[in-house]
Amino acid sequence: MIQAYNPRTGEPAGNPVPETTEAEVDTLVRRAAEAAGEWVASERRAEALEAIADALDDHAEDLVAIADTETALGTERLTGEVARASGQFRLFAGVVRNGEYRKVVHTEAVGPAPDLRRALRPLGPVAVFAASNFPFAFSVAGGDTASALAAGCPVIVKAHEGHPGTSELSAAIIAGALEAAGVAGNPFGLIHGVDAGLALLRHPLITAAGFTGSIPGGLALQRVCAERPVPIPFFGEMGAVNPVVVLPGAASGRPREIADGYAGSLTLGAGQFCTNPGLLFVPDEAEILSAVSAAAGNASGGPMLTERIFRGYESAVAEAAAHPGLSELASGQPGEGPWGATPRVYTTSLKEFAADVPVLARERFGPAGIVVTYPSVDELLPVLAGLPGNLVGTLHAAESDLGDARRLVPVLEWIAGRVVYNGWPTGVAVVPAQQHGGPYPATTSAEHTSVGSAAINRWLVPVAYQNFPAGLL
Amino acid sequence: MIQAYNPRTGEPAGNPVPETTEAEVDTLVRRAAEAAGEWVASERRAEALEAIADALDDHAEDLVAIADTETALGTERLTGEVARASGQFRLFAGVVRNGEYRKVVHTEAVGPAPDLRRALRPLGPVAVFAASNFPFAFSVAGGDTASALAAGCPVIVKAHEGHPGTSELSAAIIAGALEAAGVAGNPFGLIHGVDAGLALLRHPLITAAGFTGSIPGGLALQRVCAERPVPIPFFGEMGAVNPVVVLPGAASGRPREIADGYAGSLTLGAGQFCTNPGLLFVPDEAEILSAVSAAAGNASGGPMLTERIFRGYESAVAEAAAHPGLSELASGQPGEGPWGATPRVYTTSLKEFAADVPVLARERFGPAGIVVTYPSVDELLPVLAGLPGNLVGTLHAAESDLGDARRLVPVLEWIAGRVVYNGWPTGVAVVPAQQHGGPYPATTSAEHTSVGSAAINRWLVPVAYQNFPAGLL
Repeated sequence: MIQAYNPRTGEPAGNPVPETTEAEVDTLVRRAAEAAGEWVASERRAEALEAIADALDDHAEDLVAIADTETALGTERLTGEVARASGQFRLFAGVVRNGEYRKVVHTEAVGPAPDLRRALRPLGPVAVFAASNFPFAFSVAGGDTASALAAGCPVIVKAHEGHPGTSELSAAIIAGALEAAGVAGNPFGLIHGVDAGLALLRHPLITAAGFTGSIPGGLALQRVCAERPVPIPFFGEMGAVNPVVVLPGAASGRPREIADGYAGSLTLGAGQFCTNPGLLFVPDEAEILSAVSAAAGNASGGPMLTERIFRGYESAVAEAAAHPGLSELASGQPGEGPWGATPRVYTTSLKEFAADVPVLARERFGPAGIVVTYPSVDELLPVLAGLPGNLVGTLHAAESDLGDARRLVPVLEWIAGRVVYNGWPTGVAVVPAQQHGGPYPATTSAEHTSVGSAAINRWLVPVAYQNFPAGLL
Repeated sequence: MIQAYNPRTGEPAGNPVPETTEAEVDTLVRRAAEAAGEWVASERRAEALEAIADALDDHAEDLVAIADTETALGTERLTGEVARASGQFRLFAGVVRNGEYRKVVHTEAVGPAPDLRRALRPLGPVAVFAASNFPFAFSVAGGDTASALAAGCPVIVKAHEGHPGTSELSAAIIAGALEAAGVAGNPFGLIHGVDAGLALLRHPLITAAGFTGSIPGGLALQRVCAERPVPIPFFGEMGAVNPVVVLPGAASGRPREIADGYAGSLTLGAGQFCTNPGLLFVPDEAEILSAVSAAAGNASGGPMLTERIFRGYESAVAEAAAHPGLSELASGQPGEGPWGATPRVYTTSLKEFAADVPVLARERFGPAGIVVTYPSVDELLPVLAGLPGNLVGTLHAAESDLGDARRLVPVLEWIAGRVVYNGWPTGVAVVPAQQHGGPYPATTSAEHTSVGSAAINRWLVPVAYQNFPAGLL
């Protein structure tokens, strides 16, 4: 049985949910595979996605209420997240209607060369592993589900154990909307439990998997996908420290604004974002350091999503506190409840940092950051270039920094999937030009994004049709 | 030392070539990485690719002469293949000039959503593992090299041991053309030897690998890529049996034409094509069977590329000959030389075939085929759907077969990257709409093609730029 807990109290929330058995997983996958043909052929796929969006909005209050009990993320944030989730279904309805996502290319016959038409087709039933930290936007009703359904792939979601009730309600809303929209069969299903998730990944009819979560979790599931008799692609979004570089002109020109922005981004959602700015690089100047120290000291933590995540944060913080190269710069206000995280910011020099990158550039999921002081941009660039892959790289620059910025961008675009100018990495717009991905270990496939309309690309593969008569196309 | 042999005689051809040491691999990769910045930024990249194309054409006679000695593929085929290789460099020069391959997308700021621009960037230095069976088009001067260089990625090619002299000459021509075109540094290099290839894949500055070859070879190298501290994508094109389905109307309407086409495709290049039609499905009718038997019996084999490939073919044929479900339908004329392959065609019923798909649908690299007789299209479809992935699926249909063809195409597009109507799978046009790829084990990444302009996609990943000022773009 899977039991949710209220992070504000540590007490059980709602009734326990049974783990899905292997036989039930098999039934769900077979049903999904049977529904695949009609789902992809349906002319009403866009309408069905919009029906899901409408149903999510209609049930927003209930969804927010149960999710707040299970995650303590707060009504405001969760209300916005339901809107984001329904917005993603509408975005992908538009992508389906537009039709360009199939990338049809036609090369007419010339001389001995044949007529060829290439177009994308859906992979088939796919597995989606939900994340803990976005109970809507990266969970059962999240972007992986919306983009895969839009591609024409049936979806079986493995719920995150942190919010089983929210997952059940989301699934019921989606299934109800599909049925009401007249969709034949069951192109959508939900399962619970680690073993059920493994059975899902190993099922011969599953053709790909999407995942949002930790690096160890992602790598373990990727291995399962690779070791199948027929390997399948695994699109894992895992971990990142998302370096922020403050260039000298920006640091001296607006130290307070930058410090406040940093503390806000670091502690947003108790730091439980894959885009959290875990590393801040600033010039070795007292003013910016003391501004950061003050802002971080005033910042508040929050209740973490689960006891396990809280324990992980505590141990990551203990590792940092014990590291000989780090000293504490600031400690913020503790969060509510038994799993309340306290913001912690450490500092070190570029030289100390460079001496132990594998440990110091490790993701610490929660509101913990390391501020690295650099003596010069010349010395900073090669150290940045050696960082592991990230979802986001950020630079803060003033007019006077543009020369340095031009040298910095090629390094940031090498180590991150998105580069932010004079902003913060948290906050990911769901738009066509978005890229929420990045080099390993940020993701297992740097060529894809899990946010924005291009997320549909993961679930499609091309087929070329050679010399096909009109009657067969 | 790596020694080439003349397949027509089994005697050494040319001087042995030393294996590249690990230190030399390191030097080449470092030089390539140093050249990366200038190579991708160069406004003359398209001109440089055209210079390579011109240089290949200028040296076509020498290239063909040495390749014919090392591969015995014949002057006509090899002359055509040099033209194909130079044509690929010109195709990709056009792709670079056009610029659309960078897939620039711009979402303007609206309300709280930021301005975002996404574009593709090259991965960095990549490894290319050359194939045995196309000494130009899938080797040192092949499509992987051309597409990766076009993407802006420096390339180090691991030569195939079957044609080291051809590889050396190709590399010298490419390097000379790049130098003459004024390209700075060394964005291209060549290495020899299995150990050198492994050192290349494990080199921390290598960012991806392309491979064309056998399934065991591809899987072994893929594992090396996956087990690196920082895993890299491995684009392997491996093995396929490329089923051909002859529908009843076509079988009774033009049995001889189909039989001749089949025998020609099966034995082309001594059957040494990844698109070779290893499985032919025909109605259980005497006429088409006897036509295939006659055509295959008249077909000639040829000298195989290497002793190892010949031994592999002999053992694959022995396995088929000993299989209780197969009986020999025809045996053709032996090829020239000590490694001359003899065409062999076996036959079985759909029922027998379905009882041992893993063995009977195994690729037998060379001119060996299995003809499977099917009692009805209804019974055929589920067996086809259970085949492993292929590069090509082919159907032959008459007007009267269109209903069956409409049911067959969705199965073929599921198990193959290209579906051919009333043609043969061998022969792969290098055009924008081409898809030379397919589900596992045909390739390790069904979403990509290794032939045609879309082959460039393998070497690129997206980056989004958020709120960038004009001066920084």
